[in-house]
Amino acid sequence: MQIPKSHPRYHSLMIREKLVSAFRKGIVVPEGLIAHGRGECFDYILGESSRDFALEAEKTAVAMLMLAKNPVISVNGNAVALASEEIARLAKAIGTPVEVNIFHRDERRVEIISKEMERFGIPVYSRGDAELEGLESARRIVDRRGILKADVVLVPLEDGDRCEILKRHGKKVISIDLNPLSRTSRMADVSIIDNITRAIPNMLKFAEDLKKANKDELKEIVEMYDNRRILRNAILAIKEYLEKRAGELHD
Amino acid sequence: MQIPKSHPRYHSLMIREKLVSAFRKGIVVPEGLIAHGRGECFDYILGESSRDFALEAEKTAVAMLMLAKNPVISVNGNAVALASEEIARLAKAIGTPVEVNIFHRDERRVEIISKEMERFGIPVYSRGDAELEGLESARRIVDRRGILKADVVLVPLEDGDRCEILKRHGKKVISIDLNPLSRTSRMADVSIIDNITRAIPNMLKFAEDLKKANKDELKEIVEMYDNRRILRNAILAIKEYLEKRAGELHD
Repeated sequence: MQIPKSHPRYHSLMIREKLVSAFRKGIVVPEGLIAHGRGECFDYILGESSRDFALEAEKTAVAMLMLAKNPVISVNGNAVALASEEIARLAKAIGTPVEVNIFHRDERRVEIISKEMERFGIPVYSRGDAELEGLESARRIVDRRGILKADVVLVPLEDGDRCEILKRHGKKVISIDLNPLSRTSRMADVSIIDNITRAIPNMLKFAEDLKKANKDELKEIVEMYDNRRILRNAILAIKEYLEKRAGELHD
Repeated sequence: MQIPKSHPRYHSLMIREKLVSAFRKGIVVPEGLIAHGRGECFDYILGESSRDFALEAEKTAVAMLMLAKNPVISVNGNAVALASEEIARLAKAIGTPVEVNIFHRDERRVEIISKEMERFGIPVYSRGDAELEGLESARRIVDRRGILKADVVLVPLEDGDRCEILKRHGKKVISIDLNPLSRTSRMADVSIIDNITRAIPNMLKFAEDLKKANKDELKEIVEMYDNRRILRNAILAIKEYLEKRAGELHD
């Protein structure tokens, strides 16, 4: 479908097309389209831009990943559909492996998603040779080399219960989720309330900025960070946006 | 797929599964999946429950449909996917025909949706033998016996431009739309800001309650109703909900 560049929602519609095309390739499941719609709506009421609270979380996330012993980026169908190349570049920039971990698991889909990421010449874990105790969904199936032993996990576009389990297993969790009220956002150590298509490129820039920082400098960034304040500011930003829109409706 | 009952968002995920299964049957289009996700977002910030303003609108809607000369319930793929049986029961309870009217029209899909509703033994209009002037999308195609001559139309999960045209053709419009800021909600005579899976069962209860009401009693309900107040209260409810949630994050 041709979307005119002049369309006021050109960017958002282009992202949607990306997802629908990944859906046709078998990367994204129908449930992923629904989840994306929900994200779109939250993006809309957040003003479709990377706000201060997002940038601060993104910078902290990069510092945390750089400090980690065994960091890992967990990807699912939607994340790969929307930002495969950017995720690969981030993985390279900070030396982090990528693991495929999906809610609606089938081996064929795991393979398609892995291949999509391997195109960029990065190691992709997808063996599913271990299980995270305490989780009923297929997301419990992990790779011994990746999530199982990781101390910091970046989970873009996550479902909430896994986030909780990762925490219970002693891992630090960084989420990317446009809904500041979600369980994922509330459970994560660093909640990036931003669109993944902006978040990862922002993180790449921060990785570049922080390349020469020493450990103490990175630690300071992490220590100064307050996730509750970030969540509060994100919720208030939605409130302000809706108030503004409601104000326009006054008689 | 199996969704564990222990999942904290079990209910919302079950609704999603309903929609995905309807998608596989050809009732719902991919765009409908994304649209559903957007609805989920507003349901979230409304606290996922039927609030006072929703109940008042639902009661008024039932009274208005009962008073109408030629009422009709217009259904699309998502509405049928989420609430076919409940819609059929409501149609029977208040003696209203159902008409299939979809944005992404193709005759095969119209037939599948019609059959899905006819299972419940109600008359379903889908002839498409008339057009509503002033509308470019396929939703202009209507049935002579239904929307064309209707004085009151219930339009669950509507797109904004059609609501406007229905109004211009002199019809009263009742919408079900979780977004109180949408064009549909702002244009409708009665805006039900609620999830269709709760709204229709609520309306069924009101239909039961009002079965013995006389015309004057029904008229009074409609006359006392102020849709601007309903919209305002819905927006305030979102605002309050977000404030409360933000407040819980205080240190």
